Amino acid sequence: MSMSFIIREGKHKDAKSILDLIVELAVFEKEPDAVEISLGDLIRDGFSDRPRFKTFVAETAEGSIIGMALFYERYSTWKGKTIHLEDLMVTANQRGIGAGKALYASVLKYAHENNYKRVAWEVLDWNTNAIEFYRNTGANVFEEWRVAQMNQEGLEKFIHENF
Amino acid sequence: MSMSFIIREGKHKDAKSILDLIVELAVFEKEPDAVEISLGDLIRDGFSDRPRFKTFVAETAEGSIIGMALFYERYSTWKGKTIHLEDLMVTANQRGIGAGKALYASVLKYAHENNYKRVAWEVLDWNTNAIEFYRNTGANVFEEWRVAQMNQEGLEKFIHENF
Repeated sequence: MSMSFIIREGKHKDAKSILDLIVELAVFEKEPDAVEISLGDLIRDGFSDRPRFKTFVAETAEGSIIGMALFYERYSTWKGKTIHLEDLMVTANQRGIGAGKALYASVLKYAHENNYKRVAWEVLDWNTNAIEFYRNTGANVFEEWRVAQMNQEGLEKFIHENF
Repeated sequence: MSMSFIIREGKHKDAKSILDLIVELAVFEKEPDAVEISLGDLIRDGFSDRPRFKTFVAETAEGSIIGMALFYERYSTWKGKTIHLEDLMVTANQRGIGAGKALYASVLKYAHENNYKRVAWEVLDWNTNAIEFYRNTGANVFEEWRVAQMNQEGLEKFIHENF
Protein backbone atom coordinates (compact mmCIF):
# COMPACT_ATOMS: atom_id res chain seq x y z
CA MET A 1 0.00 0.00 0.00
CA SER A 2 1.31 3.40 -0.96
CA MET A 3 1.53 5.71 2.01
CA SER A 4 2.35 8.97 0.32
CA PHE A 5 0.41 11.08 -2.10
CA ILE A 6 0.04 14.62 -3.34
CA ILE A 7 -3.11 16.63 -4.03
CA ARG A 8 -3.21 18.53 -7.32
CA GLU A 9 -5.77 19.88 -9.75
CA GLY A 10 -7.19 17.21 -12.07
CA LYS A 11 -6.19 17.39 -15.73
CA HIS A 12 -7.39 16.00 -19.04
CA LYS A 13 -5.07 12.98 -18.66
CA ASP A 14 -6.80 12.07 -15.37
CA ALA A 15 -10.28 11.80 -16.88
CA LYS A 16 -10.30 7.99 -17.13
CA SER A 17 -9.17 7.62 -13.51
CA ILE A 18 -11.80 10.14 -12.42
CA LEU A 19 -14.54 8.26 -14.27
CA ASP A 20 -13.41 4.99 -12.64
CA LEU A 21 -13.79 6.67 -9.23
CA ILE A 22 -17.23 8.04 -10.18
CA VAL A 23 -18.36 4.51 -11.02
CA GLU A 24 -16.83 3.07 -7.83
CA LEU A 25 -18.68 5.70 -5.79
CA ALA A 26 -21.98 4.90 -7.53
CA VAL A 27 -21.53 1.22 -6.64
CA PHE A 28 -20.82 2.19 -3.01
CA GLU A 29 -24.01 4.29 -3.06
CA LYS A 30 -25.95 1.22 -4.26
CA GLU A 31 -26.65 2.74 -7.68
CA PRO A 32 -24.31 0.67 -9.87
CA ASP A 33 -26.15 1.46 -13.11
CA ALA A 34 -26.64 5.18 -12.47
CA VAL A 35 -23.56 6.46 -14.31
CA GLU A 36 -24.67 7.35 -17.83
CA ILE A 37 -21.91 9.78 -18.80
CA SER A 38 -19.11 8.53 -21.04
CA LEU A 39 -15.42 9.32 -20.90
CA GLY A 40 -15.99 11.65 -23.85
CA ASP A 41 -18.77 13.46 -21.98
CA LEU A 42 -16.55 13.90 -18.92
CA ILE A 43 -13.67 15.29 -21.00
CA ARG A 44 -15.96 17.66 -22.91
CA ASP A 45 -17.72 18.84 -19.75
CA GLY A 46 -14.73 19.16 -17.44
CA PHE A 47 -11.58 19.66 -19.46
CA SER A 48 -12.59 21.98 -22.28
CA ASP A 49 -12.59 25.77 -22.70
CA ARG A 50 -15.52 26.39 -20.37
CA PRO A 51 -15.42 23.56 -17.85
CA ARG A 52 -18.60 22.78 -15.90
CA PHE A 53 -16.64 21.56 -12.88
CA LYS A 54 -13.18 21.42 -11.31
CA THR A 55 -11.40 18.46 -9.75
CA PHE A 56 -8.65 17.76 -7.30
CA VAL A 57 -6.95 14.38 -7.45
CA ALA A 58 -4.82 12.44 -4.97
CA GLU A 59 -1.82 10.94 -6.78
CA THR A 60 0.70 8.49 -5.34
CA ALA A 61 4.46 8.75 -5.82
CA GLU A 62 4.06 6.02 -8.45
CA GLY A 63 1.59 8.17 -10.40
CA SER A 64 -1.65 6.37 -9.53
CA ILE A 65 -4.82 8.40 -8.97
CA ILE A 66 -6.32 7.01 -5.76
CA GLY A 67 -8.96 9.63 -5.05
CA MET A 68 -10.72 12.71 -6.35
CA ALA A 69 -13.00 15.58 -5.41
CA LEU A 70 -15.29 17.07 -8.08
CA PHE A 71 -16.96 20.41 -7.45
CA TYR A 72 -18.53 23.45 -9.12
CA GLU A 73 -20.19 26.77 -8.40
CA ARG A 74 -23.72 27.23 -7.12
CA TYR A 75 -25.58 30.32 -5.96
CA SER A 76 -27.31 30.89 -2.65
CA THR A 77 -29.96 33.61 -2.59
CA TRP A 78 -29.06 33.98 1.08
CA LYS A 79 -25.24 34.06 0.97
CA GLY A 80 -24.11 34.57 -2.65
CA LYS A 81 -21.70 32.39 -4.62
CA THR A 82 -21.04 28.97 -3.13
CA ILE A 83 -19.26 25.72 -3.98
CA HIS A 84 -21.00 22.39 -4.38
CA LEU A 85 -18.89 19.31 -3.72
CA GLU A 86 -20.54 16.77 -5.99
CA ASP A 87 -18.23 13.78 -5.44
CA LEU A 88 -15.52 12.97 -2.91
CA MET A 89 -14.07 9.49 -3.35
CA VAL A 90 -10.99 7.47 -2.44
CA THR A 91 -10.63 4.02 -3.96
CA ALA A 92 -11.42 1.23 -1.47
CA ASN A 93 -7.93 -0.24 -1.02
CA GLN A 94 -6.36 3.18 -0.36
CA ARG A 95 -8.56 4.32 2.49
CA GLY A 96 -7.14 5.29 5.85
CA ILE A 97 -4.04 7.12 4.66
CA GLY A 98 -5.66 10.55 4.77
CA ALA A 99 -6.36 11.10 1.08
CA GLY A 100 -10.08 11.72 1.65
CA LYS A 101 -9.49 14.33 4.31
CA ALA A 102 -6.75 15.96 2.19
CA LEU A 103 -9.08 16.21 -0.82
CA TYR A 104 -11.90 17.57 1.35
CA ALA A 105 -9.56 20.12 2.93
CA SER A 106 -8.33 21.18 -0.52
CA VAL A 107 -11.86 21.99 -1.64
CA LEU A 108 -12.56 23.95 1.55
CA LYS A 109 -9.28 25.83 1.11
CA TYR A 110 -10.13 26.60 -2.52
CA ALA A 111 -13.54 27.91 -1.46
CA HIS A 112 -12.09 30.04 1.30
CA GLU A 113 -9.32 31.50 -0.87
CA ASN A 114 -11.77 32.37 -3.64
CA ASN A 115 -14.28 34.01 -1.33
CA TYR A 116 -17.08 31.48 -1.69
CA LYS A 117 -19.63 31.89 1.07
CA ARG A 118 -20.40 28.23 1.69
CA VAL A 119 -19.54 24.70 0.59
CA ALA A 120 -22.42 22.24 0.28
CA TRP A 121 -22.75 18.57 -0.56
CA GLU A 122 -25.10 15.63 -0.04
CA VAL A 123 -24.59 12.49 2.03
CA LEU A 124 -26.63 9.32 2.48
CA ASP A 125 -28.21 9.01 5.93
CA TRP A 126 -26.83 5.48 6.43
CA ASN A 127 -23.27 6.65 5.76
CA THR A 128 -22.77 7.43 9.44
CA ASN A 129 -18.96 7.38 9.27
CA ALA A 130 -19.04 10.15 6.69
CA ILE A 131 -21.64 12.17 8.62
CA GLU A 132 -19.56 11.93 11.81
CA PHE A 133 -16.44 12.98 9.91
CA TYR A 134 -18.21 15.99 8.39
CA ARG A 135 -19.69 17.11 11.71
CA ASN A 136 -16.29 16.80 13.38
CA THR A 137 -14.87 19.23 10.84
CA GLY A 138 -17.54 21.84 11.64
CA ALA A 139 -20.06 21.11 8.88
CA ASN A 140 -23.82 21.02 9.41
CA VAL A 141 -25.76 17.96 8.27
CA PHE A 142 -29.41 18.97 8.13
CA GLU A 143 -32.24 16.65 9.08
CA GLU A 144 -35.19 18.61 7.68
CA TRP A 145 -34.18 19.38 4.10
CA ARG A 146 -35.12 16.86 1.41
CA VAL A 147 -33.56 16.55 -2.01
CA ALA A 148 -36.11 16.58 -4.85
CA GLN A 149 -35.40 15.69 -8.47
CA MET A 150 -37.22 15.47 -11.75
CA ASN A 151 -35.28 13.06 -13.94
CA GLN A 152 -35.19 13.00 -17.74
CA GLU A 153 -38.09 10.55 -18.05
CA GLY A 154 -40.16 12.65 -15.63
CA LEU A 155 -39.31 15.82 -17.56
CA GLU A 156 -40.47 14.32 -20.84
CA LYS A 157 -43.71 13.10 -19.31
CA PHE A 158 -44.38 16.44 -17.61
CA ILE A 159 -43.72 18.43 -20.79
CA HIS A 160 -45.89 16.12 -22.85
CA GLU A 161 -48.79 16.47 -20.41
CA ASN A 162 -48.53 20.22 -19.75
CA PHE A 163 -47.51 21.90 -22.99
CA MET B 1 -56.80 40.21 -6.47
CA SER B 2 -55.31 40.01 -9.93
CA MET B 3 -56.24 36.79 -11.71
CA SER B 4 -54.07 37.02 -14.77
CA PHE B 5 -50.33 37.00 -15.18
CA ILE B 6 -47.60 36.20 -17.66
CA ILE B 7 -44.33 34.32 -17.16
CA ARG B 8 -41.24 35.94 -18.62
CA GLU B 9 -37.51 35.97 -18.03
CA GLY B 10 -36.45 38.19 -15.14
CA LYS B 11 -34.55 41.36 -16.01
CA HIS B 12 -32.36 43.91 -14.23
CA LYS B 13 -35.42 46.07 -13.48
CA ASP B 14 -36.99 43.14 -11.56
CA ALA B 15 -34.09 42.73 -9.15
CA LYS B 16 -35.75 44.57 -6.25
CA SER B 17 -38.96 42.53 -6.62
CA ILE B 18 -36.91 39.33 -6.78
CA LEU B 19 -35.01 40.24 -3.62
CA ASP B 20 -38.30 40.99 -1.84
CA LEU B 21 -39.51 37.48 -2.77
CA ILE B 22 -36.21 35.94 -1.59
CA VAL B 23 -36.71 37.59 1.80
CA GLU B 24 -40.38 36.55 1.97
CA LEU B 25 -39.35 32.94 1.23
CA ALA B 26 -36.67 33.03 3.94
CA VAL B 27 -39.29 34.18 6.45
CA PHE B 28 -41.60 31.36 5.35
CA GLU B 29 -38.70 28.91 5.85
CA LYS B 30 -38.26 30.26 9.41
CA GLU B 31 -34.87 31.82 8.63
CA PRO B 32 -35.83 35.53 8.61
CA ASP B 33 -32.24 36.73 9.13
CA ALA B 34 -30.58 34.39 6.64
CA VAL B 35 -30.57 36.71 3.63
CA GLU B 36 -27.20 38.45 3.60
CA ILE B 37 -27.03 39.46 -0.05
CA SER B 38 -27.79 43.05 -1.00
CA LEU B 39 -29.65 44.37 -4.01
CA GLY B 40 -26.28 45.32 -5.47
CA ASP B 41 -25.00 41.76 -5.00
CA LEU B 42 -28.08 40.33 -6.69
CA ILE B 43 -27.74 42.67 -9.67
CA ARG B 44 -24.01 41.99 -10.05
CA ASP B 45 -24.47 38.22 -9.71
CA GLY B 46 -27.56 37.77 -11.86
CA PHE B 47 -27.86 40.60 -14.31
CA SER B 48 -24.31 41.25 -15.49
CA ASP B 49 -22.19 39.90 -18.35
CA ARG B 50 -21.70 36.45 -16.86
CA PRO B 51 -24.77 35.83 -14.72
CA ARG B 52 -24.56 33.15 -12.04
CA PHE B 53 -28.28 32.33 -12.31
CA LYS B 54 -31.38 32.87 -14.41
CA THR B 55 -34.87 33.85 -13.29
CA PHE B 56 -38.42 33.64 -14.49
CA VAL B 57 -40.95 36.05 -13.03
CA ALA B 58 -44.76 36.05 -12.90
CA GLU B 59 -46.05 39.52 -13.75
CA THR B 60 -49.64 40.73 -13.50
CA ALA B 61 -51.42 42.77 -16.16
CA GLU B 62 -50.78 45.78 -13.88
CA GLY B 63 -47.03 45.13 -13.96
CA SER B 64 -46.57 43.69 -10.46
CA ILE B 65 -44.09 40.85 -9.94
CA ILE B 66 -45.98 38.30 -7.82
CA GLY B 67 -43.62 35.33 -8.06
CA MET B 68 -40.27 34.13 -9.29
CA ALA B 69 -38.15 31.06 -9.96
CA LEU B 70 -34.37 31.33 -9.66
CA PHE B 71 -32.18 28.57 -11.09
CA TYR B 72 -28.70 27.76 -12.42
CA GLU B 73 -26.60 24.94 -13.81
CA ARG B 74 -25.14 22.07 -11.85
CA TYR B 75 -23.32 18.94 -12.95
CA SER B 76 -24.19 15.35 -12.17
CA THR B 77 -21.37 12.82 -12.50
CA TRP B 78 -24.10 10.31 -13.28
CA LYS B 79 -26.22 12.19 -15.83
CA GLY B 80 -24.29 15.26 -17.05
CA LYS B 81 -25.47 18.87 -17.03
CA THR B 82 -28.48 19.57 -14.82
CA ILE B 83 -30.52 22.50 -13.54
CA HIS B 84 -30.87 23.43 -9.89
CA LEU B 85 -34.02 25.30 -8.90
CA GLU B 86 -32.79 27.35 -5.95
CA ASP B 87 -35.95 29.34 -5.19
CA LEU B 88 -39.58 29.09 -6.26
CA MET B 89 -41.81 31.65 -4.59
CA VAL B 90 -45.19 33.34 -5.03
CA THR B 91 -46.08 36.17 -2.70
CA ALA B 92 -48.57 35.14 0.01
CA ASN B 93 -51.61 37.13 -1.16
CA GLN B 94 -51.31 35.88 -4.76
CA ARG B 95 -51.34 32.15 -4.09
CA GLY B 96 -53.89 29.87 -5.70
CA ILE B 97 -54.05 31.47 -9.14
CA GLY B 98 -51.51 29.08 -10.68
CA ALA B 99 -48.45 31.31 -10.72
CA GLY B 100 -46.34 28.81 -8.77
CA LYS B 101 -47.15 25.94 -11.07
CA ALA B 102 -46.60 28.14 -14.13
CA LEU B 103 -43.15 29.19 -12.88
CA TYR B 104 -42.25 25.59 -12.02
CA ALA B 105 -43.42 24.40 -15.43
CA SER B 106 -41.39 27.13 -17.14
CA VAL B 107 -38.19 25.93 -15.46
CA LEU B 108 -38.91 22.32 -16.42
CA LYS B 109 -39.63 23.38 -19.99
CA TYR B 110 -36.41 25.40 -20.13
CA ALA B 111 -34.47 22.38 -18.87
CA HIS B 112 -36.10 20.05 -21.36
CA GLU B 113 -35.59 22.38 -24.31
CA ASN B 114 -31.95 22.92 -23.46
CA ASN B 115 -31.18 19.24 -23.00
CA TYR B 116 -30.53 19.27 -19.28
CA LYS B 117 -30.63 15.77 -17.84
CA ARG B 118 -32.35 16.55 -14.56
CA VAL B 119 -33.84 19.35 -12.47
CA ALA B 120 -33.13 19.26 -8.73
CA TRP B 121 -34.18 21.36 -5.76
CA GLU B 122 -34.56 21.13 -1.97
CA VAL B 123 -37.71 21.19 0.12
CA LEU B 124 -38.34 21.26 3.88
CA ASP B 125 -39.80 17.99 5.21
CA TRP B 126 -42.63 19.84 7.02
CA ASN B 127 -43.72 21.55 3.79
CA THR B 128 -46.04 18.66 2.95
CA ASN B 129 -48.18 20.64 0.51
CA ALA B 130 -45.13 21.34 -1.62
CA ILE B 131 -43.90 17.75 -1.39
CA GLU B 132 -47.28 16.44 -2.48
CA PHE B 133 -47.38 18.92 -5.36
CA TYR B 134 -43.89 17.90 -6.53
CA ARG B 135 -44.64 14.19 -6.33
CA ASN B 136 -47.89 14.68 -8.27
CA THR B 137 -45.89 16.23 -11.11
CA GLY B 138 -43.60 13.19 -11.33
CA ALA B 139 -40.68 14.39 -9.20
CA ASN B 140 -38.86 12.22 -6.67
CA VAL B 141 -38.45 13.49 -3.11
CA PHE B 142 -35.73 11.39 -1.51
CA GLU B 143 -35.80 10.32 2.13
CA GLU B 144 -32.23 9.09 2.53
CA TRP B 145 -30.12 11.96 1.20
CA ARG B 146 -29.03 14.65 3.65
CA VAL B 147 -27.87 18.15 2.79
CA ALA B 148 -24.51 19.05 4.34
CA GLN B 149 -22.99 22.52 4.47
CA MET B 150 -19.90 24.23 5.76
CA ASN B 151 -20.76 27.89 6.25
CA GLN B 152 -18.36 30.83 6.16
CA GLU B 153 -17.66 30.74 9.88
CA GLY B 154 -17.01 26.99 9.69
CA LEU B 155 -14.72 27.47 6.71
CA GLU B 156 -12.64 30.06 8.50
CA LYS B 157 -12.32 27.88 11.59
CA PHE B 158 -11.43 24.80 9.54
CA ILE B 159 -8.80 26.65 7.50
CA HIS B 160 -7.29 28.18 10.64
CA GLU B 161 -7.00 24.78 12.31
CA ASN B 162 -5.79 22.76 9.32
CA PHE B 163 -3.45 24.98 7.29
